[in-house]
Amino acid sequence: MITTVIANGKDEYSFIDALKLRSNSGAKDVSGIVSDIIENVRKNGDKAVYDYTLKFDGKAPLEVEISADEIDRIIECCDKDYIKTLEKAAANIEDFHKRQIQQSWLTTKENGVIMGQRVRGLERVGLYVPGGTAAYPSSVLMNAIPAKLAGCREIVMTTPPSKDGTPNPDIIAAAKIAGVDRIFLMGGAQAVAALAYGTEQVPKVDKIVGPGNIFVATAKKLLYGVVDIDMIAGPSEILIIADKTANPKFLAADLMSQAEHDRLASSILLTDCETLAQKVKAELTRQCALLERKEIIEESLENYGAIIVCSDMSQAIDFANELAPEHLEVCCENPMEYVGKLDNAGSVFLGNYSPEPLGDYFAGPNHVLPTSGTARFFSPLSVDSFVKKSSFIYYTESALKNDAEDIVRFANTEGLTAHANSISVRFEE
Amino acid sequence: MITTVIANGKDEYSFIDALKLRSNSGAKDVSGIVSDIIENVRKNGDKAVYDYTLKFDGKAPLEVEISADEIDRIIECCDKDYIKTLEKAAANIEDFHKRQIQQSWLTTKENGVIMGQRVRGLERVGLYVPGGTAAYPSSVLMNAIPAKLAGCREIVMTTPPSKDGTPNPDIIAAAKIAGVDRIFLMGGAQAVAALAYGTEQVPKVDKIVGPGNIFVATAKKLLYGVVDIDMIAGPSEILIIADKTANPKFLAADLMSQAEHDRLASSILLTDCETLAQKVKAELTRQCALLERKEIIEESLENYGAIIVCSDMSQAIDFANELAPEHLEVCCENPMEYVGKLDNAGSVFLGNYSPEPLGDYFAGPNHVLPTSGTARFFSPLSVDSFVKKSSFIYYTESALKNDAEDIVRFANTEGLTAHANSISVRFEE
Repeated sequence: MITTVIANGKDEYSFIDALKLRSNSGAKDVSGIVSDIIENVRKNGDKAVYDYTLKFDGKAPLEVEISADEIDRIIECCDKDYIKTLEKAAANIEDFHKRQIQQSWLTTKENGVIMGQRVRGLERVGLYVPGGTAAYPSSVLMNAIPAKLAGCREIVMTTPPSKDGTPNPDIIAAAKIAGVDRIFLMGGAQAVAALAYGTEQVPKVDKIVGPGNIFVATAKKLLYGVVDIDMIAGPSEILIIADKTANPKFLAADLMSQAEHDRLASSILLTDCETLAQKVKAELTRQCALLERKEIIEESLENYGAIIVCSDMSQAIDFANELAPEHLEVCCENPMEYVGKLDNAGSVFLGNYSPEPLGDYFAGPNHVLPTSGTARFFSPLSVDSFVKKSSFIYYTESALKNDAEDIVRFANTEGLTAHANSISVRFEE
Repeated sequence: MITTVIANGKDEYSFIDALKLRSNSGAKDVSGIVSDIIENVRKNGDKAVYDYTLKFDGKAPLEVEISADEIDRIIECCDKDYIKTLEKAAANIEDFHKRQIQQSWLTTKENGVIMGQRVRGLERVGLYVPGGTAAYPSSVLMNAIPAKLAGCREIVMTTPPSKDGTPNPDIIAAAKIAGVDRIFLMGGAQAVAALAYGTEQVPKVDKIVGPGNIFVATAKKLLYGVVDIDMIAGPSEILIIADKTANPKFLAADLMSQAEHDRLASSILLTDCETLAQKVKAELTRQCALLERKEIIEESLENYGAIIVCSDMSQAIDFANELAPEHLEVCCENPMEYVGKLDNAGSVFLGNYSPEPLGDYFAGPNHVLPTSGTARFFSPLSVDSFVKKSSFIYYTESALKNDAEDIVRFANTEGLTAHANSISVRFEE
């Protein structure tokens, strides 16, 4: 069910290319359909949203917003222990993310010059949350809490109704705990369009975040520029680097926790120990048989899973930096020593007791991470994702006079003489 | 040549829509041609770049990299005073941007938990610099200096050869002063593709920044995801808010400094003083006649210029926040008081002696700014644009044991039982 490769500097790199390409494979192009939906919602507002909800979800509410009373009533039926778990997770996420908050600043220079950078939260953010089997309350926490900490004035969530016309209660509970201000019962490309343009009932937002199916992802892509969006996530990945001190039982479990996501998920183990590789292979077979989602796991491991035996750990590090995985576990002696060497990864899990699901749900760092090798240049979702910055410049007459000759020379060299004129006109007789 | 509107809460807002849409108007779709160029460069590397350079630029070098000796020889022929101006501007830009540098951090929690966020520069950044009449050395400084400060290991610049096969010396001088590491003589979509995929001579980069024509912009858009890119800039804008204390001569000069950029540039004045509006109108006519680029200025003012007389300054502020202009000048008494009220703008210029060209060339803040109303959610180019972040988590056995029950409950609620297994397997007998 999983390939074992002896690293030879060739096979494993062709494997990287295959992994990076898998995000495009099989996705049908729905941009025609989605364009029509967007255009219809832009023109006809709530009426269009209503029609699409009826068509795609079965039952459609006339009033799409869920009232505060109704929210409380819905949450009543959630498991009380689960609510406590959500609250603990939310506290950890808030504690980690508050350290990312950037301050506005100013600096002064001679002649009374003042300059600076203002940092402030986006006015209104829209959070899309899928329904059905892909309904993940953890994703509500991970998206809404950083937006709240960034100082966004209003966080608006939208989630599709289930067949009976109601929302998933766990999602609603997570939204309330995370500080979501308003919740709308609508899904799909129509919900994304409603957030981007606003309708009679739905307010227009500045940025849309959150996962979704191909229709939601395509709508976000098409509306990028009208609003800001987050990264479009590809299939999930884990890369584990392990030496002989690692526990094969743990490693097998962690590889499969990634593999269960979907058939395109990728789980790779790199080790310098061939005995460990064999033991992990055996553990995969043993544990997989006991798991609910074993068919998905088997298919994902078969297609995109691998155990690669490296000549040494530095070869493993090079491979990890080249792959730039979303999740990277280090199950080695002295794991902290790897922090400065692993340059490309969304999130790094260090040691034998930091399994990836700890980060998915609980520890505090964000679980919205760059996929498909984009950790080479993209970053995890963070408070930064929900702020806008602007600079300001205040010059005095004497300060501008000091620099006037240089600025005029610069403008003239670039052939922009009206730029030069705007300086010199201020010092004409 | 310019429209005067008395604000009525309707006309000026339909004007905003027209402005935001102008970036799409008239741009032909070259994605077919550009796709072919990208594919050819990806397959055939330097050979393809050579062929396109020959075809589009007239003369093509076999070796695309400009050697260090040649760089020094080229700079020899630049004006010495201009070099000094470039150096002063570079020092100001560095001084402002170094305040944006973010530090990696870590935090510890009970039971020996360590978590943190690593911030580091992208490995290699590519800077595209147009040739011909759109060759702006200021743009080299504004793009390369923040990348350098971010800690990028290598900054690679590419610029097309002129008809005689040589680069623009001022561009080369700015590159050396800004700390660009390697310079390649190639332009157009082929240069962008070479940076994204790498060729025999050109190294692959992680992010491509810098302005360019429709072919360059389209290539960047198509390659987004293979590499990161900066914002695709729309036409330039200035909005000036002025009260009766402002100088009409200055205001007219500043409006035209924006208008001279191109026929799609937009220059708008908002004031609560009708007398001032009339005086600025007269000054526009007077000064425009004296300016080299007067035809562009007249056309731009005619189409996208306006003087809007507001009922009071708070109406002007509302309009500014709605328009979210790239450049925003405040020529009012006590201009610093506006800093906290202007929420959407790329860069804010305060007072009668902070004209927009001061920011284009010299003061220090970046001149690469969000256009077409996107300052509602985008930020100026900054050191942040050239870093990647990742989080790391180190949990001890006792720390994970403490949280195990919550994590298992969370995973099971989401139906991800292999996630739950990865926690529980660690505490089995």
